[in-house]
Amino acid sequence: MKGILLIAHGSRRSESNEEVQQLTHTLRNRLDRKTIILCCAFLEQARPSIPEGIDACIQAGARSILILPYFLSAGRHVSRDIPELIHNKQIQYPDITFHLRPHIGSSEGMTDLLLSMIHPEAK
Amino acid sequence: MKGILLIAHGSRRSESNEEVQQLTHTLRNRLDRKTIILCCAFLEQARPSIPEGIDACIQAGARSILILPYFLSAGRHVSRDIPELIHNKQIQYPDITFHLRPHIGSSEGMTDLLLSMIHPEAK
Repeated sequence: MKGILLIAHGSRRSESNEEVQQLTHTLRNRLDRKTIILCCAFLEQARPSIPEGIDACIQAGARSILILPYFLSAGRHVSRDIPELIHNKQIQYPDITFHLRPHIGSSEGMTDLLLSMIHPEAK
Repeated sequence: MKGILLIAHGSRRSESNEEVQQLTHTLRNRLDRKTIILCCAFLEQARPSIPEGIDACIQAGARSILILPYFLSAGRHVSRDIPELIHNKQIQYPDITFHLRPHIGSSEGMTDLLLSMIHPEAK
């Protein structure tokens, strides 16, 4: 089993966190649930935390975990805090493989996404 | 001429703001520069501000302005602060048409973008 952890910043506003949970739900429905476990986690302000999300993936049977930082810019959360949390979990679980993807703001697809908002009829 | 204003939160870290400027540059190269003026602006922490960005679009000849909120969740910035700023500019410029798009986190394309990060080979 492969785990995927979508990591968001987290907000005091529950509606913002629910948006991330809804996105996770939508994404989960488009993945093969027999081989992929998708969870979301929050850096701060909301639960599950990132360590809790990693634990949940592993307890559900994941042997490798892909980390997707749902962040627009490479601030210290992306450049330092998230890698540190992953590093600590790698020490705790030496047999699990962790893959940390770049934050979504640096994704090549971001330009396409913005273009689709400029020209919605071209989707 | 049509103006497009990409609005980001803005950061104390200049690198984060430069990421937005770089994305704006990449996006501009994929648009028709004879008919579209694309600018970016920041809600706080960085310049140009949103009012300054709107002024720049209008001074460059835009008669309508499409606002793209580069935000992942619908917090108070998206639900209140940005609409208020646009409303004030609409009063200042009654002959300009403003179109406010939903924040990118609510875009249908966000799921596709995340899927492309999970399965990069499928792009």
